[in-house]
Amino acid sequence: MILRFAVLGAGRIGQVHARAIASVPGAELVAIAEPNEDAAKAARAAFGCEIRTIDDCAVADDIDAVVICTPTNTHADLIEQFVRAKKKVFCEKPIDLDLDRVRQALDVVNAEGGTLMVGFQRRFDPDFMALKAVIDEGKIGEVEMVTLTSRDPGPPPYEYIKVSGGIFRDMTIHDFDVARWLLGEEIITVQAAASVLTDPEIGELGDYDSVNVILTTASGKQCTITNTRRATYGYDQRIEVHGSKGSVSAENHREANIEIATAEGYLRPPLLNFFMSRYVAAYANEIAAFAKAVADATPPPTTGEDGLKALELATAALASVKTGKAIHLE
Amino acid sequence: MILRFAVLGAGRIGQVHARAIASVPGAELVAIAEPNEDAAKAARAAFGCEIRTIDDCAVADDIDAVVICTPTNTHADLIEQFVRAKKKVFCEKPIDLDLDRVRQALDVVNAEGGTLMVGFQRRFDPDFMALKAVIDEGKIGEVEMVTLTSRDPGPPPYEYIKVSGGIFRDMTIHDFDVARWLLGEEIITVQAAASVLTDPEIGELGDYDSVNVILTTASGKQCTITNTRRATYGYDQRIEVHGSKGSVSAENHREANIEIATAEGYLRPPLLNFFMSRYVAAYANEIAAFAKAVADATPPPTTGEDGLKALELATAALASVKTGKAIHLE
Amino acid sequence: MILRFAVLGAGRIGQVHARAIASVPGAELVAIAEPNEDAAKAARAAFGCEIRTIDDCAVADDIDAVVICTPTNTHADLIEQFVRAKKKVFCEKPIDLDLDRVRQALDVVNAEGGTLMVGFQRRFDPDFMALKAVIDEGKIGEVEMVTLTSRDPGPPPYEYIKVSGGIFRDMTIHDFDVARWLLGEEIITVQAAASVLTDPEIGELGDYDSVNVILTTASGKQCTITNTRRATYGYDQRIEVHGSKGSVSAENHREANIEIATAEGYLRPPLLNFFMSRYVAAYANEIAAFAKAVADATPPPTTGEDGLKALELATAALASVKTGKAIHLE
Amino acid sequence: MILRFAVLGAGRIGQVHARAIASVPGAELVAIAEPNEDAAKAARAAFGCEIRTIDDCAVADDIDAVVICTPTNTHADLIEQFVRAKKKVFCEKPIDLDLDRVRQALDVVNAEGGTLMVGFQRRFDPDFMALKAVIDEGKIGEVEMVTLTSRDPGPPPYEYIKVSGGIFRDMTIHDFDVARWLLGEEIITVQAAASVLTDPEIGELGDYDSVNVILTTASGKQCTITNTRRATYGYDQRIEVHGSKGSVSAENHREANIEIATAEGYLRPPLLNFFMSRYVAAYANEIAAFAKAVADATPPPTTGEDGLKALELATAALASVKTGKAIHLE
Repeated sequence: MILRFAVLGAGRIGQVHARAIASVPGAELVAIAEPNEDAAKAARAAFGCEIRTIDDCAVADDIDAVVICTPTNTHADLIEQFVRAKKKVFCEKPIDLDLDRVRQALDVVNAEGGTLMVGFQRRFDPDFMALKAVIDEGKIGEVEMVTLTSRDPGPPPYEYIKVSGGIFRDMTIHDFDVARWLLGEEIITVQAAASVLTDPEIGELGDYDSVNVILTTASGKQCTITNTRRATYGYDQRIEVHGSKGSVSAENHREANIEIATAEGYLRPPLLNFFMSRYVAAYANEIAAFAKAVADATPPPTTGEDGLKALELATAALASVKTGKAIHLE
Repeated sequence: MILRFAVLGAGRIGQVHARAIASVPGAELVAIAEPNEDAAKAARAAFGCEIRTIDDCAVADDIDAVVICTPTNTHADLIEQFVRAKKKVFCEKPIDLDLDRVRQALDVVNAEGGTLMVGFQRRFDPDFMALKAVIDEGKIGEVEMVTLTSRDPGPPPYEYIKVSGGIFRDMTIHDFDVARWLLGEEIITVQAAASVLTDPEIGELGDYDSVNVILTTASGKQCTITNTRRATYGYDQRIEVHGSKGSVSAENHREANIEIATAEGYLRPPLLNFFMSRYVAAYANEIAAFAKAVADATPPPTTGEDGLKALELATAALASVKTGKAIHLE
Repeated sequence: MILRFAVLGAGRIGQVHARAIASVPGAELVAIAEPNEDAAKAARAAFGCEIRTIDDCAVADDIDAVVICTPTNTHADLIEQFVRAKKKVFCEKPIDLDLDRVRQALDVVNAEGGTLMVGFQRRFDPDFMALKAVIDEGKIGEVEMVTLTSRDPGPPPYEYIKVSGGIFRDMTIHDFDVARWLLGEEIITVQAAASVLTDPEIGELGDYDSVNVILTTASGKQCTITNTRRATYGYDQRIEVHGSKGSVSAENHREANIEIATAEGYLRPPLLNFFMSRYVAAYANEIAAFAKAVADATPPPTTGEDGLKALELATAALASVKTGKAIHLE
Repeated sequence: MILRFAVLGAGRIGQVHARAIASVPGAELVAIAEPNEDAAKAARAAFGCEIRTIDDCAVADDIDAVVICTPTNTHADLIEQFVRAKKKVFCEKPIDLDLDRVRQALDVVNAEGGTLMVGFQRRFDPDFMALKAVIDEGKIGEVEMVTLTSRDPGPPPYEYIKVSGGIFRDMTIHDFDVARWLLGEEIITVQAAASVLTDPEIGELGDYDSVNVILTTASGKQCTITNTRRATYGYDQRIEVHGSKGSVSAENHREANIEIATAEGYLRPPLLNFFMSRYVAAYANEIAAFAKAVADATPPPTTGEDGLKALELATAALASVKTGKAIHLE
């Protein structure tokens, strides 16, 4: 069975998903919906697919599933529209910046018996999957401490920051999801610190660029998350999990696996500089997992509920920064 | 311009090339020629291409180029047939086990003004290309010593060994080509040692499984090559180049970039276990380079002459083992 | 000039310092004071020094300096006694578990114009010194984030835990000092989480075995500290400092710098398993720095004030765990 | 029992051994013999020992053992003198540049029932010992291939090169000994290549600066040795042993175990730059092993015979370069 896709939005992340669909056997890209005419033409040229309106996609017989890559403030509406149209829905994170709006959308998904997968591609990275398998095989015993380091090479544009919901909801949200995935237990307490260190303009927009978070579960397992919006050496993405019998860690990806030795020392190349090159395999695996879940009629591996939980943690982290208190989730 | 390909032979390496062609924009797989009916059907299913005879491919108007992946003893004949049929020819190494037959085939290519590229995929590996770029940029100064380590996870089947021409012509030939590429100067002396250490049956077939070679150029640059037919930890492929200002090395590729720490120590996964997974990108880059050379009407980056030179070195290495002497090439 | 030492207390850490003194040119071990007769005899045999009482050491003309390695609850009294006796004083951390008692002792040191160095040996580890030099040379720009990972192979005996003052004052105190050293700015906020994950008995003693701490300075620089009392793979001691122009990190020390490759993968030995083997060079450097400060009549590199500040941070961390609030220091 | 030493010669290597003796419990430095008055004074100041003549050392009652660190052309005479004087003898490599003179000296040692240890310190390096233990425990199965990489940061002075006996007898001799130690089987064939690449003056002195050697044992095990007299990145000392079940390798030692990440990439410091800093522990272990062999009345771990065998390999390597033939040893 081939799952026939429409991608809504041909921006950066829309192109990533279109490319992923093209590389996955069992998935086919039928159409892209993109209001910007130049972007639409470029997408048609690049992917050899049709250009349709969103509404056309919703009623099309030759489309089984959509990937929602439009601006965040449209996600919840589109989820509701396409679930009602009986399409399988894959939505980029976050579902919405507002927790109540997210819950409302999930209610519609449930009422319609729809399928919603939320895009947390890191769970599908081959190295992170190998790390998770090591944990699941019991090789490090009981998980006790998770350490997540995520550093972006540079900040997004100010225009994006303004509507992003802030660093916790835009960037750390991926780490919150990874934390839940690896801790294997719901988080009950959030402590966070946040600063503006790389660019005062980010502070003037009401956001932060440098944050640390401690998460604790009911049984006392802990996770720390370190995020910054600037790393001169590339896109820094590391995981370390410490358990009762040992630890497991995943290494960064470099531009090339070479090393140059000179009088200055031993130099390895910087890291891959962009989430799109770093997570190529993850995006393809993610679409393949969605297609497989649809084919098998099983729940997708990352659900709307996962999207809601990660957003709750982001909201709590911000509250912790504002109040100086550990925030307890029920 | 799209280069339309036929692949001759749907064995292991034929499938590698078919897959590479499918992944390269600017290349299209039209047909596969494969006498074994089951293999032919499998290839058609996998690659969605036609099955034709070799002779049909030679005269087809919708085929611009062939990739020769048939048994070695047919390579020279097919090169001549397809060059005369005005097809662009990509041939897996070696052109032939016999130096004179190789020279004869190259004469035909030259007489016909044909295009022949020989498959030395390592030159197209992204890491090795990055290593070569470091040398070309002068970062390690003048090249003085090249160290090549190539270890196969296990030996090929006895049936293959019998017709392979021996380890120097079958396995080391890749290293001979890499040595020439990196030394940047023709080799004039070959010294070699060879043993049977992994399986006495290999010795009874007249071959070796463990060899070391020293190559020297006119100006005194040296290269050592270490080959074995058994490595429990995977497919070991390393290059180190030492120069007047420093060194550059390329690392192996692992199954996953993770590390597990326990009371036993710090464990990283074994290496990718097969040339087909290790060199996926190299095979795609190689076909892309061939397509580009055809499009640009430039000589291909690895020529029939390169194939001949590597075979001369392999022949000299065997002579060195047999005579206990350094063999001088003119 | 040779600085003539008495070591007070011949327990584990007393022996470390006795050995350090023996290895430092410019330092000489004259006497050890140790009430336990067997321990005293062993020390005399090992170090070839005299055994004296503490009071004898205080009045001896042939002793210039003492290293206080007695139980924590005697530190403050001994500091006062020896400072008044005009001896140069080196005291193991902590000065006392009670902040007021520490301040009182420091007042005596100041009133007497005495010299007091507190034992934070990590500042004298060659790798950590090299890391600090990289920061001081500006190679990573402005320091923004410090990440400290300290994991003990196993917990100390219950008897020790009872009188240790808890994990923050016993173990994390070293990290608090390193944080202050590397941030280059006083810390104003402490957030901490603490759990019992390795042994419930530790919880019954009122202590924790797994903690995470976030420290923030006035300008918004942050530091995270991760501590656990169990690491199967050895004594885990890592530092990473992230700055505006780059990062610098210090690696762990292994039992041997070898790697074994088999079908299981690539295995490096576990870490050195004990602070005494890991920090051999640091302890020697520390005593040398103390001797040099005395010879040069300069303040020692780690002062009583440093001891006080680290204890304040430990006290704040515990308060943060108890109250669930970020604790602000003035 | 304390072994009382005299060191003959207070040059660079003499000082290394004097320092090693001082650091070894069970060894005591009584005297140094050094004709150069300034050097003698410096040694007395540094090591607090007496200065005596060689002949005085030979007859002294308070000296049990000598370490011969004088110029090579005096080694054989001094071995004979001190063995006859019933002193235990430790001699720096080589015993002599002439094979017959070496055999003559060994005959005297045997006739006198003397103890002679030859200085091949690499066998006592902690990492190389750990590597050897891995082999001895059978973890990599049967040894098949040994790869030795030894690169000096720079060449010795011309004056030294003139009397050194050439690179094979001066530098490679250490690798020949390590090869014999790790192969566990005598070598029967030597093939070598040699060039002058770093400094033409070295060639004018009749020596080489860049060599590769292949050694083969009777059962077909092989070893390659790579030597150069210039490495901008420090003193490069690596061992890799490949066996039927896996491989084991020993890593280089750096100036510090840190890594700096910037836009240029990830930089680790260069290697320790000198054999004296690289092999500090090896020199101490070597003297300790000598003292232990004397105390236990067992043969020393590296005998005069080992010195002879390594020199035979060096001589054969030179012959291979000169004749272009594989040299067979009986």
